[in-house]
Amino acid sequence: MCTCITYENGDFYFGRNLDLEYSFGERVVITPRNYPLTFKKEAAMDCHYSMIGMASVMGGYPMYAEAVNEKGLGMAGLNFPGNAFYPLEGKKKYQVTPYEVIPWILGCCATVREARMYLEQADLVGIPFAADVPLAPLHFMLADKTGALVAEPVEEGLKLYENPFGVLTNNPPFPFHLMNMQQYLNLTAKAPENRFGEGTDMKPFGQGMGAVGLPGDASPASRFVRAAFVKWNSRARREEKANVSQFFHILDSVAMVRGMVLTEEGREDITTYSCCVNARTGVYYFKTYDNHRIQAVDMRAEDMDGSGLLAYELPLEEDIQYRLKQGGRTEDA
Amino acid sequence: MCTCITYENGDFYFGRNLDLEYSFGERVVITPRNYPLTFKKEAAMDCHYSMIGMASVMGGYPMYAEAVNEKGLGMAGLNFPGNAFYPLEGKKKYQVTPYEVIPWILGCCATVREARMYLEQADLVGIPFAADVPLAPLHFMLADKTGALVAEPVEEGLKLYENPFGVLTNNPPFPFHLMNMQQYLNLTAKAPENRFGEGTDMKPFGQGMGAVGLPGDASPASRFVRAAFVKWNSRARREEKANVSQFFHILDSVAMVRGMVLTEEGREDITTYSCCVNARTGVYYFKTYDNHRIQAVDMRAEDMDGSGLLAYELPLEEDIQYRLKQGGRTEDA
Amino acid sequence: MCTCITYENGDFYFGRNLDLEYSFGERVVITPRNYPLTFKKEAAMDCHYSMIGMASVMGGYPMYAEAVNEKGLGMAGLNFPGNAFYPLEGKKKYQVTPYEVIPWILGCCATVREARMYLEQADLVGIPFAADVPLAPLHFMLADKTGALVAEPVEEGLKLYENPFGVLTNNPPFPFHLMNMQQYLNLTAKAPENRFGEGTDMKPFGQGMGAVGLPGDASPASRFVRAAFVKWNSRARREEKANVSQFFHILDSVAMVRGMVLTEEGREDITTYSCCVNARTGVYYFKTYDNHRIQAVDMRAEDMDGSGLLAYELPLEEDIQYRLKQGGRTEDA
Amino acid sequence: MCTCITYENGDFYFGRNLDLEYSFGERVVITPRNYPLTFKKEAAMDCHYSMIGMASVMGGYPMYAEAVNEKGLGMAGLNFPGNAFYPLEGKKKYQVTPYEVIPWILGCCATVREARMYLEQADLVGIPFAADVPLAPLHFMLADKTGALVAEPVEEGLKLYENPFGVLTNNPPFPFHLMNMQQYLNLTAKAPENRFGEGTDMKPFGQGMGAVGLPGDASPASRFVRAAFVKWNSRARREEKANVSQFFHILDSVAMVRGMVLTEEGREDITTYSCCVNARTGVYYFKTYDNHRIQAVDMRAEDMDGSGLLAYELPLEEDIQYRLKQGGRTEDA
Repeated sequence: MCTCITYENGDFYFGRNLDLEYSFGERVVITPRNYPLTFKKEAAMDCHYSMIGMASVMGGYPMYAEAVNEKGLGMAGLNFPGNAFYPLEGKKKYQVTPYEVIPWILGCCATVREARMYLEQADLVGIPFAADVPLAPLHFMLADKTGALVAEPVEEGLKLYENPFGVLTNNPPFPFHLMNMQQYLNLTAKAPENRFGEGTDMKPFGQGMGAVGLPGDASPASRFVRAAFVKWNSRARREEKANVSQFFHILDSVAMVRGMVLTEEGREDITTYSCCVNARTGVYYFKTYDNHRIQAVDMRAEDMDGSGLLAYELPLEEDIQYRLKQGGRTEDA
Repeated sequence: MCTCITYENGDFYFGRNLDLEYSFGERVVITPRNYPLTFKKEAAMDCHYSMIGMASVMGGYPMYAEAVNEKGLGMAGLNFPGNAFYPLEGKKKYQVTPYEVIPWILGCCATVREARMYLEQADLVGIPFAADVPLAPLHFMLADKTGALVAEPVEEGLKLYENPFGVLTNNPPFPFHLMNMQQYLNLTAKAPENRFGEGTDMKPFGQGMGAVGLPGDASPASRFVRAAFVKWNSRARREEKANVSQFFHILDSVAMVRGMVLTEEGREDITTYSCCVNARTGVYYFKTYDNHRIQAVDMRAEDMDGSGLLAYELPLEEDIQYRLKQGGRTEDA
Repeated sequence: MCTCITYENGDFYFGRNLDLEYSFGERVVITPRNYPLTFKKEAAMDCHYSMIGMASVMGGYPMYAEAVNEKGLGMAGLNFPGNAFYPLEGKKKYQVTPYEVIPWILGCCATVREARMYLEQADLVGIPFAADVPLAPLHFMLADKTGALVAEPVEEGLKLYENPFGVLTNNPPFPFHLMNMQQYLNLTAKAPENRFGEGTDMKPFGQGMGAVGLPGDASPASRFVRAAFVKWNSRARREEKANVSQFFHILDSVAMVRGMVLTEEGREDITTYSCCVNARTGVYYFKTYDNHRIQAVDMRAEDMDGSGLLAYELPLEEDIQYRLKQGGRTEDA
Repeated sequence: MCTCITYENGDFYFGRNLDLEYSFGERVVITPRNYPLTFKKEAAMDCHYSMIGMASVMGGYPMYAEAVNEKGLGMAGLNFPGNAFYPLEGKKKYQVTPYEVIPWILGCCATVREARMYLEQADLVGIPFAADVPLAPLHFMLADKTGALVAEPVEEGLKLYENPFGVLTNNPPFPFHLMNMQQYLNLTAKAPENRFGEGTDMKPFGQGMGAVGLPGDASPASRFVRAAFVKWNSRARREEKANVSQFFHILDSVAMVRGMVLTEEGREDITTYSCCVNARTGVYYFKTYDNHRIQAVDMRAEDMDGSGLLAYELPLEEDIQYRLKQGGRTEDA
């Protein structure tokens, strides 16, 4: 289970929580322009846009959970069990596998508009990377500063939806979330007035009571509503650090804390990592469950014309800053 | 508005979110054993237990928002507007002001049990620190590894309550929260079974659906329930870093993100800082709204027998770790 | 479990749902002015106000679940398990048993104001009617057209509360409900506007969406909120039949349907009857679970100066009006 | 806005609440077998199954809100604003208008299975009854004792869905409700156990607390969930009167009380009538907002071979049964 959001406040940001009960060998991976990308059914790309994101690398192939390319287009895959459907053979012009579609789109598209043209002519086909590597059931959010798109491979084909909220979680399919949101339109971030009934005398006993009714559990529909509420009421200074900080605060509000979500098998579903990419600069910010400190990898600081993948390991534990004695007798603070 | 929790997992931790629409000049402050503490109505303490916590220092006086002493007793004040009542003159044996009560208790009590004996004989009197420093309306949570206590100064006097949840937020008075919790006893962190009705065929469409109904807004009653749910289902390795990390994850789940709560005046109520104290070691961990990285101040690393306050400034912006190139061509990951 | 409400719309009405998993032998009972009322500890009343209500009669004693007297004062007892406390011996001026308190108050008080004076000096003592008749754990709502009062016998004594909502259900004690109501002040009967967040475009997909968040279960706290919402938004023509009809519609909205509430023992908790009394005219309207048709007993049509109880059996099944052929060829409707 | 349900308990019942802010001139109307039914685009039926239901009759045409035919097939139209779409010209074999579709289907189909075959080949076309009679935006529920079907005329055509819940309300389209229901699978009619978290000690303070979280507002999505909950937990004796009584109790639990739902124009949306048809016997039971007493019209008691419509007016006010003196001195009850 996952939550993907966009955020616009001066600059444009794209990122997500990845919620899972296990690790998939993820590292931050830069695919520079000249690293050859191959596809099961489509022509290889020897040269393409560079991209950065979280991926496991199998047999030299960057299997991205999400990435942003040098043009500022972002794309993320999110768990979509029971609904994702990959035909063995597609009927449209392009046929790409679920794990190829992120590099395939980000390799050649600069905008959501371009990506949409490709996706409209594409099928996601059910060809696994290898016999022993099962396909993950996924749907996708794509975004640039002009807007967001949802792509869902279902039985009827690959469906595309405008996403006015810039939020995606998991099941059910996207149209449900769009409609479900309307149930919450009466909520407000403002201090509420008594609207319960004429003649009643009621006052909020605390702050934040205009949003009573906002769901707080970690189910996909509830995370969608909560992420949307926090995002659309968000305020931050229009500066890089403030924006990045705010982006992670939004993601924190829908993160899964270890133990609060158990799978049917009793395993702990947690937010293994959160990330935020500045789509203009290509800096990939992230933090892991075990380390609150924000990490950053700057794609442009590396050789974007290179021909080898660059991978960055994730920190394994809290990087706490121990404060040395700085005080002293305070005569009068 | 604030949220205070305890957490036991091998070691015992005490901490809180402080939610406010402004800063009160807070710094991490160690009061060593020989820093003289004076009180408006009670005898001064020249020598006392040392303590560490977040405080503003006015005229040399450490006005703690919360602190933990060297014996492992923690105490926090939380906003209690409209309900806190401080008589001008008390009727009981001890008379302390709201801003004195934390150093007064932590200075001389090693346990909740001792603290209770003092508080049972105490009134919180409405004497301001200075003419131009209004008294904050507060109630308090005290805790050590044996349990937690809530102290609420209301019109009927200073009321004390056992706190089986180890959670405190704000209004209404504590008995309301105790009762309100019972409304949520049907929620579960586990994958739910269909219990809706015999003959219906329903399956959860995602993880976490046993807790649908958990409140997600930032009002005090909703934060109480959510903090309790996340805390009581929490799982972590019984190690210091994992525990501290987990403690902040719990606090993150009830934190106020800038913009999601506006006061009546339209100001942004946010979680200005979060803290977590290991009650045994006296290490005070904290992070601020503007910096996700956890900071630590170790009381025992300083001169606990000193006679001067030690104060540590708070970081003002994200301390991001920029990752240098560490990768290279990955032949086969 | 039960729900008691008042309703003012030209005339003033008092009534309730009685929710129980069994019958207590209830009948509509008129106690005329000269029927002698005796009390375990207080002086008998040979002459008193007449009253009408639902009661079981044991050994000639009218054990009222609720009643209204000829002066327009109503009083109802509602289940209060775990909280009701009856000392064996009281300390105040008057000592009445729980099953006596309704005839005792209604026998001699014309208004809530008078009733309050008596109740302030009264204890409800734990003396059963007979050795084999256990005392029901109860709290009470009293009302006349000037307002409503709640009386709760708890360990600290008989507590009295103004009731601005004119609604009572069951546990927890009344102060909880008063506070709990404030959580719902943002709800509205009106068509809601989008207040979710600036920049979002949301419209209600149906009527009634300003009240999304109103609780729909049958628990006491949820029934309290729902009854208050429906009552305080209620609209009806200011005529007797319209008011009575509306009163039952309000009660229907919080009624327990057979099967939707099972007790710990698996028994079906249902709304065995609903009643509505016009406090001015003394007409007692009621309907039972098994018969939707409203029945009426008019106290003033009987001999109010009589000295014998009058009892009216409850109908056992639907009194359906079968419509005879009334139509015919409609040439042009 | 409306709620339609089926109920099986020995016999099979079909019925609905009709929620509207105005009257549409409705009467109970029997269309006997030989009353000629004409259609704008399809062949007239001179002879057909007889049917009974609520209808306005315009120019001799029975415009049914819902009806049940002599074979036990029921069909109801429910408001579907913003989603209902009627092409001016259809592309399928049959073309019927929205107000014709109920008599068209009930006239010639004995079962849901047969109805489905017709509907699969039908378009609902946007031809009004007359120039000044606008088409209502509708979707439909059909049911017999074997199951229920939903038919929704949307832009993509007339969509058909199996309805495992036997419940229909209004917007959004049916697939939303199917999915939305899954969010509530953790609710239970039984006395709940504490599942909140190990180590917590919580007990329900009242009956019905396993269903806390059930929505109580009158929006279509909330009514769907509540109606389904009450229906699927319903228990009644397997007798006609008990079943009919229970059916109306279920409908009462989702009825709109005057004032609790205001339209955008400030008008009062209320449950103008509720009905319940025994599909086997053809008895049409109903009650109106203004009269709680259940009325019945028995189709088989009339001349089902007739050639004229039979219409029955609705009662306008409460038909209260005034109870005469029946009591007397009760010596010992």
